[in-house]
Amino acid sequence: MSLEGFFDPRTVAVVGASRQKGKVGHEIVANLVRGGFGGAVYPVNPKADEVEGLRCYPDLKSIETPPDLAVVSVPAKAVSAVIRECGQVGCKSAIVITAGFKETGDEGRRLEEELSQTARRAGVRIIGPNCLGVLVPGKKLNASFGGDLPEAGGIGYVSQSGALLTAILDSAKASGIGFSMLVSIGNKADLDELDVLEALYNHEDTSVIAGYLESVTDGKSFLRLAEEISHRKPILLLKAGGTTAGARAASSHTGSMAGSETAYEVVFQRAGIVRCDSIKTQFDYAQAFAYQSLPRGTRVAIVTNAGGAGIMATDAVERQELRFAKFSDETLTKLSENLPAAANVNNPVDILGDALADRYEFAMDAVLSDENVDVVVVLLTPQAMTDCSGSARAAVAASRRHEDKPVLACFLGGEKVAEAAGILRDGGVPPYDSPESAVRTIKVMHDYVRWRSRPKRVVRLFPVNRHKVEKIITRHIRENIREVGEAEAKAVLEAYGFVTPKGAIATTADQAANVADQLGYPVVMKIWSPDIVHKTDVGGVRIGLRNAREVHDAFDLMMYRVPKQAPEADVLGVLLQEQVSAGKEVILGMHRDPNFGPLLMFGMGGTMVEVLRDVSFHLAPLTPEEAREMLARTRTYQLLQGVRGEEGVDIDAVAEGLRRVSQLVTEFPQIEEMDINPYVVGPPGTTSVAVDARMSVSEKK
Amino acid sequence: MSLEGFFDPRTVAVVGASRQKGKVGHEIVANLVRGGFGGAVYPVNPKADEVEGLRCYPDLKSIETPPDLAVVSVPAKAVSAVIRECGQVGCKSAIVITAGFKETGDEGRRLEEELSQTARRAGVRIIGPNCLGVLVPGKKLNASFGGDLPEAGGIGYVSQSGALLTAILDSAKASGIGFSMLVSIGNKADLDELDVLEALYNHEDTSVIAGYLESVTDGKSFLRLAEEISHRKPILLLKAGGTTAGARAASSHTGSMAGSETAYEVVFQRAGIVRCDSIKTQFDYAQAFAYQSLPRGTRVAIVTNAGGAGIMATDAVERQELRFAKFSDETLTKLSENLPAAANVNNPVDILGDALADRYEFAMDAVLSDENVDVVVVLLTPQAMTDCSGSARAAVAASRRHEDKPVLACFLGGEKVAEAAGILRDGGVPPYDSPESAVRTIKVMHDYVRWRSRPKRVVRLFPVNRHKVEKIITRHIRENIREVGEAEAKAVLEAYGFVTPKGAIATTADQAANVADQLGYPVVMKIWSPDIVHKTDVGGVRIGLRNAREVHDAFDLMMYRVPKQAPEADVLGVLLQEQVSAGKEVILGMHRDPNFGPLLMFGMGGTMVEVLRDVSFHLAPLTPEEAREMLARTRTYQLLQGVRGEEGVDIDAVAEGLRRVSQLVTEFPQIEEMDINPYVVGPPGTTSVAVDARMSVSEKK
Repeated sequence: MSLEGFFDPRTVAVVGASRQKGKVGHEIVANLVRGGFGGAVYPVNPKADEVEGLRCYPDLKSIETPPDLAVVSVPAKAVSAVIRECGQVGCKSAIVITAGFKETGDEGRRLEEELSQTARRAGVRIIGPNCLGVLVPGKKLNASFGGDLPEAGGIGYVSQSGALLTAILDSAKASGIGFSMLVSIGNKADLDELDVLEALYNHEDTSVIAGYLESVTDGKSFLRLAEEISHRKPILLLKAGGTTAGARAASSHTGSMAGSETAYEVVFQRAGIVRCDSIKTQFDYAQAFAYQSLPRGTRVAIVTNAGGAGIMATDAVERQELRFAKFSDETLTKLSENLPAAANVNNPVDILGDALADRYEFAMDAVLSDENVDVVVVLLTPQAMTDCSGSARAAVAASRRHEDKPVLACFLGGEKVAEAAGILRDGGVPPYDSPESAVRTIKVMHDYVRWRSRPKRVVRLFPVNRHKVEKIITRHIRENIREVGEAEAKAVLEAYGFVTPKGAIATTADQAANVADQLGYPVVMKIWSPDIVHKTDVGGVRIGLRNAREVHDAFDLMMYRVPKQAPEADVLGVLLQEQVSAGKEVILGMHRDPNFGPLLMFGMGGTMVEVLRDVSFHLAPLTPEEAREMLARTRTYQLLQGVRGEEGVDIDAVAEGLRRVSQLVTEFPQIEEMDINPYVVGPPGTTSVAVDARMSVSEKK
Repeated sequence: MSLEGFFDPRTVAVVGASRQKGKVGHEIVANLVRGGFGGAVYPVNPKADEVEGLRCYPDLKSIETPPDLAVVSVPAKAVSAVIRECGQVGCKSAIVITAGFKETGDEGRRLEEELSQTARRAGVRIIGPNCLGVLVPGKKLNASFGGDLPEAGGIGYVSQSGALLTAILDSAKASGIGFSMLVSIGNKADLDELDVLEALYNHEDTSVIAGYLESVTDGKSFLRLAEEISHRKPILLLKAGGTTAGARAASSHTGSMAGSETAYEVVFQRAGIVRCDSIKTQFDYAQAFAYQSLPRGTRVAIVTNAGGAGIMATDAVERQELRFAKFSDETLTKLSENLPAAANVNNPVDILGDALADRYEFAMDAVLSDENVDVVVVLLTPQAMTDCSGSARAAVAASRRHEDKPVLACFLGGEKVAEAAGILRDGGVPPYDSPESAVRTIKVMHDYVRWRSRPKRVVRLFPVNRHKVEKIITRHIRENIREVGEAEAKAVLEAYGFVTPKGAIATTADQAANVADQLGYPVVMKIWSPDIVHKTDVGGVRIGLRNAREVHDAFDLMMYRVPKQAPEADVLGVLLQEQVSAGKEVILGMHRDPNFGPLLMFGMGGTMVEVLRDVSFHLAPLTPEEAREMLARTRTYQLLQGVRGEEGVDIDAVAEGLRRVSQLVTEFPQIEEMDINPYVVGPPGTTSVAVDARMSVSEKK
């Protein structure tokens, strides 16, 4: 959808314009005029003749040609009428600044619903209400009451908080950061973050999209769109506030491990969105993305006039797990021949405290020309001889000669480096306030590059028995049973290609011994009760029973003890199972987020999962590559590969198991959560077994 | 030691003073004059009559009364002669600015040694050489070439890098941060970081000590002094550069887990030093410590005029694991009655976008008066109506009325909040650039408070058999054997009160079967070779051997297979041991840092220790409280307490084991590293057993 009426209008009407300074209706007119907007501005107010020297119209109809955009700041109760009038005169775009809608309670909510309906009927698109407005520096359009227009630049910003946007505008002014567009989306009565993201995606002057969001209206569409955008333009988001998903009581390990922020984490990771933890880091990242090329690798070179700053940068490179460029012999020779003898020609290159601009330029050219260098950080401290501004110009010049490699700067200090910071920024070399910040930015850029170069996502499906699962789940939902019992949960897994241990149910000690004889020893005994989910917790699991006598004893003990631990539980008997021989225990799980859908989990299995918290999450459906990546993000992965001479296990079987779970929960949205724990995996060639499983279902919403 | 001559001299001579602007010898005189130093300044230079309007002396002897302090910037070769002259005239303190000493190579190193000796003989104390100088704003003393004096304040700074200090001075000027003293220690030819730390400790105007260090000259003295200082004044350090300790190849798990930064981490933690990762965070923390009281708890209240900023702060509070203050009914009533209806009176308190200064002051007073509140963060975004400076004054006033509770501010923005930031800083309410930074600072303050309130460290000793250990270790050192074999390592442990499994050595299969018969089945067989440290890696461990036949087979297989895996190893036979019954496996280890001494390690045992990396470190010797704390810092601790219905193990036995290791390695500095892995611990009442141990020794240095 095109939002040109908002971002590139020829004419703007300000409805609710006021002559009184300080009033919102006055500030908007004043900002439009002061910003230097080229098109006509029409103040509208029946009680005024002129505002800020412009002729004032009594209503929209009185304007000779209908305006492209209306900025509305009349009282809340009058807004709907204005929007209706917009529709009548053919003004298709309106920014509703006015507050007092759903943020204030029931009456406001009613007014907002009325406004949405009115807009739909009138064919008018709305940004707001309760928003700050829209600023497009490149078009000199300041349709807001948020202060002066910032510099024009490549960063497009969308904010769910108008107040934060005022702070951002004010900070940007102080630091000279440039924007393509800033949009305050307010209450999202009509247009929401998706519409604005799409508009920024298609907006030629925007090279980086940044934003502040508290909530996402439509999780799945957000994911789809963000993933598409990220392939062309990086998205940097400040996401505040947790989701409420984590609040509901979870009966699975996976559910209890998925914190309130897990869903956003996996969504951002899947969609290539860069998550920022403050406005400052957001602009640290945004500037590099907007003005520098992407790094082709992680080999960092550092040029500094102070050893200490170089060490700080070195520490940061190690902490961020980036690599140090090792210079070619040619570069080393070049540096040795041209730098003073006391200089350090190895990385980090120390050009010494008396370095002037020429030495900076020479050293930066030398390392930027080296094919073993992917990115350069230039550091400066303002010492007695230092030419801060000249060195900034030198850094910019060197960067321009090597546009294929990113250059980031950190000139430490305050007043002495203020002018230099401006020169760097204007020259497209973003300045950072610490080596740490610069290096962290490189890491973020590199992660984005890696995301972009991932293989095309192709989800492969296994042949399965959907019908069988359909039947089991339908019955549970019909009978309003949330927890699927172990036997049927395993039947579901078998239908999706999992192997489960042989087993049978027994209700008396004699029957248990008989079943065990048939299964062969050793056997495992588990309590059979629809009311007991965590069997271990109540002493409802015994392993390694070696003969009929032990089975007898175990049965009687379980019947005696479990009811004491779980007095309300309906105990039906026991489940006997063949004991799966040695292997590593992992957990494969799923927890469904109400907004974003199924979150898959992998980790070390058994009872330790919640203690060690060595787990990884990913959105379903899963590609083969993503399944492997989920494994690789855990420490458990190393254990699976075998440590200290021990044989590794069948990693492919684990990855395949995750993909089978992924397929199951994608095809059956009724499954709310599930754990396969433990999933026992032996060496390659052996069969992996889903030893225990729990699953809960509910009606598809 | 008093360094008054440096920090509070009545008269200063500048030796090497120059008339030529830009020269170091000129800048120093100019800085002294410009800074407004109240005492006499004597330029010394035989070739000049006056410098900066001051009479110039040909040498120190010509000055009527000997100066208290000499600032020396003559060429490196002439420095020793000047110091000798200082001694002759009775000037006891000299700052040597001149560079060209040990940082430049062998000739410089020689000059520096000569300088040290000269100073010692002449009875002159030296700061430097190769340093920036000393600045004491409260005394208007600028004995440096680092730029203008910053504001006076409570932060004392010591820096190992002069260049970084120039950047710090310049930043401080821009942001108005105040200092009690800044000292550049340069090459530390005489006075080092310890002397300056001690001086800052005794310096009345210094309330917070901050510094930049790359290395510590004497680890143990540093620890002792820092720990003493931290009880009265917080120490905030920027530590750059790793130690080289990690570089030496380690044969123990503990050694391989102790990274290059581990030693500094445990030392800082033990001494209560706050580690900072950038200059910015260092000043974030320093300001709060310098101007606000320490928090008595972690209950944070937030007052904001923008919901978004409040949410960001809320997220940060959760991330930092602080708590949200829950207001008393009285406070809630007070807020409800006095704030507009749309305001949020619960934490975070949202006083709305149209809040003026009075509303800030009222809300802050209300929450500061609530006994459920320990600390307050006040947030502001500069919206249309906002009175930034007035609100800053209101925050300062409220803070002053409640001096027992810390107040931190974050006024987001740039130009619009610049004046307010100054008002806040002058009023002692430190301003932060993000809610994140403010909240992180609270966390750091709280951790410091917790450190200060820890119980007095009392190390309790166990009765042990030192003599037996002495004999074993002495023999190894005499015979130049680094690795102590398993049998003797266990003898050492037994002498220190550990229980080890019964066992004996066998060199033939028959003998092995005989030994096993006597031990009782099942037994464990381990390869016996002085050359094999990691037995599992070469297939040199078999467990659960159930009868003589299995022992026979295992022996023959081991003799056949191990030499293939480790062809150079001298295989002497096998060690047979009783098999220790079930329990949790943990590791107790020690790695000796060359600078700071023994680092103890605790973690989950077995072969997983290096994979899971769930370990904690602490310096020996260990108090009972510290031993428990080491356990509590790991996730393994939860496993030991019992998860999901499982019985917990004897936690006290683990803590006691750590203290026994601590005592052993403290009493025997020859022990370089050791692991007890696994240390098997059962439920309370059972005996914990040191199942396997490795240990290496070397001559005490």
